[in-house]
Amino acid sequence: MIYWLDLFGVAVFACSGALAAGQKRMDLFGVVVLAFVTAVGGGTLRDLVIGTTPVFWVRDPLYVWVALAAALLTFVVAHVRPLRSNLLVIADAFGLAVFTVVGTRIGVDQLGPGVIAAMTGVMSGVFGGIIRDVLVNRVPLVLRREIYASAALLGAITLQLLDALDIPSPAPALIAGTLVLALRLAALHWRLHLPAFPGRSG
Amino acid sequence: MIYWLDLFGVAVFACSGALAAGQKRMDLFGVVVLAFVTAVGGGTLRDLVIGTTPVFWVRDPLYVWVALAAALLTFVVAHVRPLRSNLLVIADAFGLAVFTVVGTRIGVDQLGPGVIAAMTGVMSGVFGGIIRDVLVNRVPLVLRREIYASAALLGAITLQLLDALDIPSPAPALIAGTLVLALRLAALHWRLHLPAFPGRSG
Amino acid sequence: MIYWLDLFGVAVFACSGALAAGQKRMDLFGVVVLAFVTAVGGGTLRDLVIGTTPVFWVRDPLYVWVALAAALLTFVVAHVRPLRSNLLVIADAFGLAVFTVVGTRIGVDQLGPGVIAAMTGVMSGVFGGIIRDVLVNRVPLVLRREIYASAALLGAITLQLLDALDIPSPAPALIAGTLVLALRLAALHWRLHLPAFPGRSG
Repeated sequence: MIYWLDLFGVAVFACSGALAAGQKRMDLFGVVVLAFVTAVGGGTLRDLVIGTTPVFWVRDPLYVWVALAAALLTFVVAHVRPLRSNLLVIADAFGLAVFTVVGTRIGVDQLGPGVIAAMTGVMSGVFGGIIRDVLVNRVPLVLRREIYASAALLGAITLQLLDALDIPSPAPALIAGTLVLALRLAALHWRLHLPAFPGRSG
Repeated sequence: MIYWLDLFGVAVFACSGALAAGQKRMDLFGVVVLAFVTAVGGGTLRDLVIGTTPVFWVRDPLYVWVALAAALLTFVVAHVRPLRSNLLVIADAFGLAVFTVVGTRIGVDQLGPGVIAAMTGVMSGVFGGIIRDVLVNRVPLVLRREIYASAALLGAITLQLLDALDIPSPAPALIAGTLVLALRLAALHWRLHLPAFPGRSG
Repeated sequence: MIYWLDLFGVAVFACSGALAAGQKRMDLFGVVVLAFVTAVGGGTLRDLVIGTTPVFWVRDPLYVWVALAAALLTFVVAHVRPLRSNLLVIADAFGLAVFTVVGTRIGVDQLGPGVIAAMTGVMSGVFGGIIRDVLVNRVPLVLRREIYASAALLGAITLQLLDALDIPSPAPALIAGTLVLALRLAALHWRLHLPAFPGRSG
């Protein structure tokens, strides 16, 4: 099930990358490149730091095709009907939830539960979006004053707690993923945020 | 021959990095750093994702010296005579062509022909330039509305097709590399571009 | 001793990341993310390119806790009293000195002395700060017209020279680290810089 979740995460993050490219009016191939980088960036970094190489999409080309198909679909749909501007952050929220769960699960499998598995989860969830935002020259979503990486961290911790309580699979993954998604969407809707750094406003 | 091509690619991409640094009026060491990162960035990422570590320039320090020499040469020449402003995109086009061929060849050797070898080719070709442009705070060439990564992809596919037809080496590499270079230079000269994302112009 | 130095480097670079996040008025978690990325970025890239995986902070979670603690401490202190604006570049200078020494030492241990060990030293020293500056959308310190990476390079060379002269440990590390720090602080204080690229001023 982790595998299908992961493919779903790749698809929605590819959409978010394509939409970000679209906001910059990039051409077809810029859209594909940005979609691909966004979709596989987090998982690639995760595989690299834990030493699982070749990385996941080199081992299994299906990921590449899924990202490509999602990017093209987004491109085509955008030509048929105008896309709502908040679609990007919603696709991003789904990708964040899915990749956090997948990354935490892989971290636990490879390295045991603990802080590092939480880090691999958060990293998988946020890094693709960071690359996307850096490439289109925006301050990354994760670094803005909204609940984002904190939602991922809570999800990574929840997954490990539910595992420790011997909740049978796939309940922990579903609960943790739903939690991340709900937190992120709630933060977007009600503009929730954490305490900020003091200093001059700006 | 791949080895000499690769060194040539490192040299021209180092020049393009040095020229980009020059446009920002960086000092000698900023020039060297940016030249080096541009020259080895694509190949480093390629080696990391396919799991060939230590990466190429750690295994063979000659790459480091070539990048350094090319950066210093660019710096010195720029002091003797003013450089034409389109030299950067031309050096970039040569680097793109060479690294796409080298990256595809290495991908095929390590993982067999297919979509992943095409990806390693495109990645080797475009990633150094992406890092260069991110560091000098420009939108990457690859993401602008010009034929760029699409030229690399066509080259990666062509190389694999010619291989499949048993064309003897080094003809496939030469033909594919020339194709990428010609496409890229033609795109620059006649401002060719792919269909763009719809939406508000910008 | 390298281990304790490394932890110290992680702490000061985490502070510099937290301070950079603070200048952009990020929230608590943005501060933590940026602090962590800055603190482990250089060492992560070093471990990846020389093929030592899992990378250091995955092998030893203490690094994660140190970075986290340093980020939180910076956040709390900033709420109690306003921080001086040059604290960021001073913390950065300490991190640069420490990581250059640690990175060079690890490079020598893994690959023998030489140009590659110097590169791993410089890379460890400068890369975390590059990521930090890219994420907050500034031109990286290393690429500005100040002595920065050149100080790291001198330190990496000095360490290897002192090793070659059989100076007993820990003198080479201390001398090389002090040299980097002194050069960097002197460059900041007296605005020393290297010759710049010719061309239009800007």
